[in-house]
Amino acid sequence: MTPTARVAAAFRRIAEVDRPEIWITLRDEADVLVDAGAVEARLAAGDTLPLAGLVVAVKDNVDVAGLPTTAGCPEFAYAPTASAAVVDRLCAAGAVVLGKTNLDQFGTGLVGTRSPYGAVRNSHHPHLVSGGSSSGSAVAVALGIADIGIGTDTAGSVRVPAALNGIFGIKPTLGILPTHGVVPACADFDAVSVLAADLDTAVAAAAAMAGPDARDPRSRSWPADVRLGAPAAPRVAIPEAPNLAALSDAYRRAFEQTVVLATDAGLRVEPVDIALLLDAALLLYDGAFVAERYAAVGEFLDTAPPGADPFVVSIIGAGRAITGPAFAADVDALARARAAAAAMLAGFDALLLPTTTEHPSLAEVRADPYSINRRMGTYTNFGNLLDMAAVAVPGVPTEAGTPFGVTIVSRTFADQIAVDIAARLSGTASPLFVESGSEVAVFGDHRRGHPLHGQLEEVGARYVRDLDGGELFRISEAGLGHLVASQLARAVIG
Amino acid sequence: MTPTARVAAAFRRIAEVDRPEIWITLRDEADVLVDAGAVEARLAAGDTLPLAGLVVAVKDNVDVAGLPTTAGCPEFAYAPTASAAVVDRLCAAGAVVLGKTNLDQFGTGLVGTRSPYGAVRNSHHPHLVSGGSSSGSAVAVALGIADIGIGTDTAGSVRVPAALNGIFGIKPTLGILPTHGVVPACADFDAVSVLAADLDTAVAAAAAMAGPDARDPRSRSWPADVRLGAPAAPRVAIPEAPNLAALSDAYRRAFEQTVVLATDAGLRVEPVDIALLLDAALLLYDGAFVAERYAAVGEFLDTAPPGADPFVVSIIGAGRAITGPAFAADVDALARARAAAAAMLAGFDALLLPTTTEHPSLAEVRADPYSINRRMGTYTNFGNLLDMAAVAVPGVPTEAGTPFGVTIVSRTFADQIAVDIAARLSGTASPLFVESGSEVAVFGDHRRGHPLHGQLEEVGARYVRDLDGGELFRISEAGLGHLVASQLARAVIG
Repeated sequence: MTPTARVAAAFRRIAEVDRPEIWITLRDEADVLVDAGAVEARLAAGDTLPLAGLVVAVKDNVDVAGLPTTAGCPEFAYAPTASAAVVDRLCAAGAVVLGKTNLDQFGTGLVGTRSPYGAVRNSHHPHLVSGGSSSGSAVAVALGIADIGIGTDTAGSVRVPAALNGIFGIKPTLGILPTHGVVPACADFDAVSVLAADLDTAVAAAAAMAGPDARDPRSRSWPADVRLGAPAAPRVAIPEAPNLAALSDAYRRAFEQTVVLATDAGLRVEPVDIALLLDAALLLYDGAFVAERYAAVGEFLDTAPPGADPFVVSIIGAGRAITGPAFAADVDALARARAAAAAMLAGFDALLLPTTTEHPSLAEVRADPYSINRRMGTYTNFGNLLDMAAVAVPGVPTEAGTPFGVTIVSRTFADQIAVDIAARLSGTASPLFVESGSEVAVFGDHRRGHPLHGQLEEVGARYVRDLDGGELFRISEAGLGHLVASQLARAVIG
Repeated sequence: MTPTARVAAAFRRIAEVDRPEIWITLRDEADVLVDAGAVEARLAAGDTLPLAGLVVAVKDNVDVAGLPTTAGCPEFAYAPTASAAVVDRLCAAGAVVLGKTNLDQFGTGLVGTRSPYGAVRNSHHPHLVSGGSSSGSAVAVALGIADIGIGTDTAGSVRVPAALNGIFGIKPTLGILPTHGVVPACADFDAVSVLAADLDTAVAAAAAMAGPDARDPRSRSWPADVRLGAPAAPRVAIPEAPNLAALSDAYRRAFEQTVVLATDAGLRVEPVDIALLLDAALLLYDGAFVAERYAAVGEFLDTAPPGADPFVVSIIGAGRAITGPAFAADVDALARARAAAAAMLAGFDALLLPTTTEHPSLAEVRADPYSINRRMGTYTNFGNLLDMAAVAVPGVPTEAGTPFGVTIVSRTFADQIAVDIAARLSGTASPLFVESGSEVAVFGDHRRGHPLHGQLEEVGARYVRDLDGGELFRISEAGLGHLVASQLARAVIG
């Protein structure tokens, strides 16, 4: 499909689905077609545009020049003169923005109902919630309107709506996608994240947006020893039964079936007590870090804007009373939790978790706006606190036919490992997210299935393709140096 | 000198100098001699003990099993059952502990006078302050009692007394020396640090103590791309004239002369406006991070122990009133300052700074206990906030013959660069601090002084020694991988 044809199809689908609550600002079709035409002109001029012909729904806490940014609160609206770094990168890669999507206000919620622009209904089960806070972007993708949904994920805001709408979500390691031009929710723990119907598209979009930006002081580069490939038989921790107490019965059964699928897919699954992760998760809202939310928008909310969501006001307002020493104590608790989590995961390539606990209806969330939402973050809230990467993947659906999702969680910067294991679970080839390291030809006993191949797995080498008599691998700089240094008594240069 | 002879000499020197205020707990000579005898037995058994025959003075906020830890406040005292990780490592390497030294209470001060155990007089100019907070350890080293002084440095507490007593101080990158068994001052920014009369001894002690400890959640390993050697002609930033306004006249002249010395030593010195570093420094005491100090010992001080120093109580007590949102805002400001500092230092190998602003007398500090101390941290307070490494080096003394010191400041994990430049400035060979990477033989155009040697400098390679027809270098894993990948179209393994 040409870019202009894709845009036209998107607008037909928007009309067809009749879900006005998805959008806070939908661009005029004519304007979007102009952008698509410009992409076609660039293609005609010979540009290589990896995302050409793809259309994007952008969560309305991420700036797009020329469109207002509301963060889900009309009184907060401002008119950005520049787009967020990630939006600029998507457009540079050939994607076209359709508009700005609804969200749980200020990114504070996992349900998709906390918005004066309307509760977002689930894509295929409209009596159920969409999940949030990246509700509009997720539903736009799940309904086939957009190819790429841009969201933000601090507590699970991309992973949860991905799960509840049966699509993929990539929440990279903090800082890999710059937050320039993004309204902070909890600035130290905000990750720009991606939604897509297939893993290839999600990864292509994430790769296009990755890399440091000088305007985001928290943005980070891949380290020299970044792992570029999961081993042939990844060792994956799953929660022990008591850790799953928060799951609904339907989701418990779906998780069990998904674990069977994972085992069949070649993952070496092993139950581990993850209580320390679940405890660490409480630091996000029950601890002092909610003061970061107050620091971001608390004084604005203290002016009592009529469009403020009362639940969001109450949650963020709690940050006002946090003391500095309590914040310092939680910084310390977090440092301890990170070290403990690293020790717990030693020897594992990743964790496989249910993404969320249940799939409530809109009516259920109306009746109980706090505790359901709170419970839904059980398996996501710790991810950014503990500086982990995550990929949300559709799992085995429930017996009722509603979506169920799991998340592959990996260490800091081990994003490619999570992508690889997500691909294994989904039965697809794994796309390259981490464009780092260099390609190395490997012969003899270091090839896959040969006696010394373990040395390549140890450094996270990534199989690329067969060569005449050998194999091509992508290896990080540190991995290559380690291999060279360990194979020869002394490496010789020159 | 044998270990027992060294201990006996230390105790003779202790008697000779008559500086009781150095010590909070001095061990019995007989007990220390037992330890020295044990070291001799290990040597006789063939153990390799890099610190054998060296005696250590340990600041009294670092645990030594069997001796009380007071942190400079008698009512705070506790009896640790285990030694701090760094003390265990020193002893394992053959060093012997003499006792626990006086300090500015809770590590809060740069003068050396804030202690109920007495103001510590300067080593060679007893009417002047010793500097602090690691006052006793610094003076014990400067007077030849101890070979190694263990201190902690959050705001300059090892760098400043090193400067004021004419000795070396190594303040490693945060987390390189574990803080297990150390009373926190400001837990996110505390660095265990070393004092010694020469760079070799300081580095040997620091190397023996370096490396992660599972009991310190903030401890860190050297990264795969750690830089292991400064280039032949290091590019070193110095402050522009307006940045030096805080210096006393005597110190301004001494700094100018030391810069001349640095240029003569082959450093490519270039003035840079460091205002953003000086601004960031204010975050340590004038901002919200003082709440970390309150979180550590504030509730204890609120009980009004009679031995509490009133100035320390006042400084730490200010942390009580810090709000959580203010703390969050300063976390954000710090992230921005770190990014700005990194941009400012791009292209430089290090900074060369005066360590402190002046050398006050004991009487002057008594008369003005706050503002002199405060000014003295001008060039040190930002170091740990901005996650930098530092080596304090004696500079050209003042015209009055009192010590003046400079500090070489380098990036996170670039500790070896700071050590190398400190050695260059001191006219000595540079010892190895960072025991990482591997040794690589280099021939042809990659040797020093040959056309491709720049490739080795780019990856921070370290010259080790000449080989027959070539040279041996130490190169990080990532550096080696980078060289291999960039030299060959494709590296071949197997």
